Amino acid sequence: MFVIITYDITDENRLNKVRKILRKYLFWTQLSTFEGEISKGKLAQCLSEVKEVISPSEDSVYVYQVENPKNLNKKVLGIEKSFLDNFL
Amino acid sequence: MFVIITYDITDENRLNKVRKILRKYLFWTQLSTFEGEISKGKLAQCLSEVKEVISPSEDSVYVYQVENPKNLNKKVLGIEKSFLDNFL
Repeated sequence: MFVIITYDITDENRLNKVRKILRKYLFWTQLSTFEGEISKGKLAQCLSEVKEVISPSEDSVYVYQVENPKNLNKKVLGIEKSFLDNFL
Repeated sequence: MFVIITYDITDENRLNKVRKILRKYLFWTQLSTFEGEISKGKLAQCLSEVKEVISPSEDSVYVYQVENPKNLNKKVLGIEKSFLDNFL
């Protein structure tokens, strides 16, 4: 399935940890957005790692799942970014 | 259709303008994410307003469209935020 993950993490240390987890599974496309194709199992694994790191009362992570990528249309205004793996 | 818009705007002034446009059409759910149901016509109008404000070589706006909201599954980890209309 195709997944888009957006997040607001209020602490720099937790933010870096969350990004490190997400980039193992998905592509980092904007400062607060990751996306990509992922299996249900891998996504569950990814989210369980994220859950261990975030503060549930301060942070916010949204996971948008689209079963069939054909149902999703992506349009870009301005630049299409991609962060290099070694950005962090 | 259901739309998720994420953005990286590098200039504070342009950022505020983009948010002002987006909140006329969608719900502000994270610092860099808006979402909601919108018609094709309204979305075209919204994006044309956004295009006039952003710097295409510096800013980045992603528009994810899902024709049928049934095809989209949203999961929230941590807090589910919503910004008040009068936040700005």
